[in-house]
Amino acid sequence: MAFIEKYKKLYMDELLTNCIPFWEDYCVDREFGGYFTCLDRDGSVYDTAKFMWMQWRIVWMFSEFYNKLERNPRWLQIAKIGYDFLTKYGKDDQGWYYFELNRQGQPAKAPYNAFSDCFAVMGCAAYYKATGDEGAKAEALRSFYQYCERENNPKGRWEKSMEGATPYKALGFYMMKLNLYDVLKENLGTNEFDEEIVKTIDFVLNTFRHPDLGVVFENVCLDGSFDLDTMNGRMTNPGHVLEAMWFIMNSSHKLGLKANEEKSMEIILKTLDYGWDTEQEGIYYFKDVLGKPHLELQWNMKLWWVHNEALIATAMAYTLSDRKEFLDWFERIHNYAWGHFKDKEGREWFAYLDRFGNPTHTLKGGKWKTFFHLPRCLYIVGNL
Amino acid sequence: MAFIEKYKKLYMDELLTNCIPFWEDYCVDREFGGYFTCLDRDGSVYDTAKFMWMQWRIVWMFSEFYNKLERNPRWLQIAKIGYDFLTKYGKDDQGWYYFELNRQGQPAKAPYNAFSDCFAVMGCAAYYKATGDEGAKAEALRSFYQYCERENNPKGRWEKSMEGATPYKALGFYMMKLNLYDVLKENLGTNEFDEEIVKTIDFVLNTFRHPDLGVVFENVCLDGSFDLDTMNGRMTNPGHVLEAMWFIMNSSHKLGLKANEEKSMEIILKTLDYGWDTEQEGIYYFKDVLGKPHLELQWNMKLWWVHNEALIATAMAYTLSDRKEFLDWFERIHNYAWGHFKDKEGREWFAYLDRFGNPTHTLKGGKWKTFFHLPRCLYIVGNL
Repeated sequence: MAFIEKYKKLYMDELLTNCIPFWEDYCVDREFGGYFTCLDRDGSVYDTAKFMWMQWRIVWMFSEFYNKLERNPRWLQIAKIGYDFLTKYGKDDQGWYYFELNRQGQPAKAPYNAFSDCFAVMGCAAYYKATGDEGAKAEALRSFYQYCERENNPKGRWEKSMEGATPYKALGFYMMKLNLYDVLKENLGTNEFDEEIVKTIDFVLNTFRHPDLGVVFENVCLDGSFDLDTMNGRMTNPGHVLEAMWFIMNSSHKLGLKANEEKSMEIILKTLDYGWDTEQEGIYYFKDVLGKPHLELQWNMKLWWVHNEALIATAMAYTLSDRKEFLDWFERIHNYAWGHFKDKEGREWFAYLDRFGNPTHTLKGGKWKTFFHLPRCLYIVGNL
Repeated sequence: MAFIEKYKKLYMDELLTNCIPFWEDYCVDREFGGYFTCLDRDGSVYDTAKFMWMQWRIVWMFSEFYNKLERNPRWLQIAKIGYDFLTKYGKDDQGWYYFELNRQGQPAKAPYNAFSDCFAVMGCAAYYKATGDEGAKAEALRSFYQYCERENNPKGRWEKSMEGATPYKALGFYMMKLNLYDVLKENLGTNEFDEEIVKTIDFVLNTFRHPDLGVVFENVCLDGSFDLDTMNGRMTNPGHVLEAMWFIMNSSHKLGLKANEEKSMEIILKTLDYGWDTEQEGIYYFKDVLGKPHLELQWNMKLWWVHNEALIATAMAYTLSDRKEFLDWFERIHNYAWGHFKDKEGREWFAYLDRFGNPTHTLKGGKWKTFFHLPRCLYIVGNL
């Protein structure tokens, strides 16, 4: 079945008349190439740093919309401005993407983070589909294999952990690996990764969920055990889990893996029960699985992306299963998100709320918010 | 003049009957040596990691109290348990202190942070004064010169900034350098650093205060200019400034540098006006000097240490100057801190409050809170 029409229309309107125009108006650096992502409430630029995750995600998102929504030459041109800038300046002589460039394109932060490569894969793959540029296809695959190579040491020589630290497998790495397979499958039009997709889904579902607690952990020991004695071992990130679960639900559905599709739905329900703030509403950013003190000061804040991913997960689960509990959750999260994150007196959405739902920052984009979670959510929900 | 008797008594009572006993009861690892600092509300250990800053600060504080308050052999024994553990396991073969050890003493996080050496200086110097152990004196001096050597590249090979990033001088480095001179002067009984103390005071006062805005910045460009175009350039940390200013006020007073003593007092007033939350009370953790979006999600939270340092700064300024505005500020901060941070149903003080004054964590110690800011504040105010 399809998702409810009134929401689909609302989400597409928000995408086309609010979110996309904001970024079209303000994010493009027409002087040096690439994008501004540190955009204040009125679109003014409060920092010109070019963070690699944020940059490549814009290439991806505008290319996606060109591929899926409308052959709008302006969107392709915006994607090209980033693609050209990032492939020219973005990586070191080993091909690793830096974490940050300055406005002019000089490297500002070392390539210590494998997710810089990860988001390059997404940008290049969708840009290839938009343009047919074989160089973009090659760069997508090269960056992908580089990302995979970084599995066991994603920070490279910048890793600070030593022999006395417990090494972990991190959910983030594998959920993005799965997402990259899906992005490559779709944009390169290949089924060559299907076997790996199945394996990765199984790995995530069988590795990170604690069998007794039922909760999906962020970090699991290399031997598969759960580390309940440390802050990092007990760390959970409900937004990550919800994002991972809709990746799994979506891929499982496409490949006819019914059991895993259903498993991901159960985990979504469990995660919402676990992550929802029953007093103040909204989903917590982090939680200690045993309720002990969390390492992060901002653990109880409410973040836009967590709620965007939760909206996708619940709307998609409802569409696939027709189970009313998913619609109930969708509407609850929808009311919270549209009531608190959407800027009713301005454009786009706020990023950060305190526990009580008050915006703590006026920014619409920054070091961690770009043209990505919100437009992806609006587009996916609008097209279910 | 001396500070007001009722407060002095209250602070010393709190130190002797609440703060010190809590740490005596729970922080000592009698099995492996060193300390537990991840202590929950009831003193239970929620992580056994041994963070270098937190460890050496305990050695320092118990040694200080042994030196200044009472020749209590239990305190010296607690200091020794840390000193022995840290000098045995704490540093790599180049003599750099790791950032973190595991419970048993194996290195868990690389020595990427110059403040690990910084707090070793403090711990060793006070431990030398307590014991006369020449090895501790030598280690204090060695660690101090190591800290100073790290001035231009404090993160060593773990530095991620590259040529496209604006390099800064950071207030934190120089305020701690000044504090270390003072600690060495006092505990080693030497005047050999007096000239450097004067130079460092001048450097801090003349480098980090913006001449027009009057605000002390956290980061200043190498050429002395202020970077108003970036998040890092506009970063201010009122708690750091208040801490730096009482270091300067105290050292200036001891050396008879009247002009600098007065300058530090003016900056204290300015910082309180600037950093105080006029709606919800308390001092902000961070502020963007132009009011633009702050990089840190938790910028508007209220932290115990900021208020401890503010209490010292205002009480000391009042004692030295007899100006009523400092007493007014002291009482305002006192009422806020004792009303919100002190755990009225348990022991010790909470660390983190949201903007509205609600504790967000139950912890009494952690990765960043140890036996340091609170007991130092209680002791100093109690003895002014």
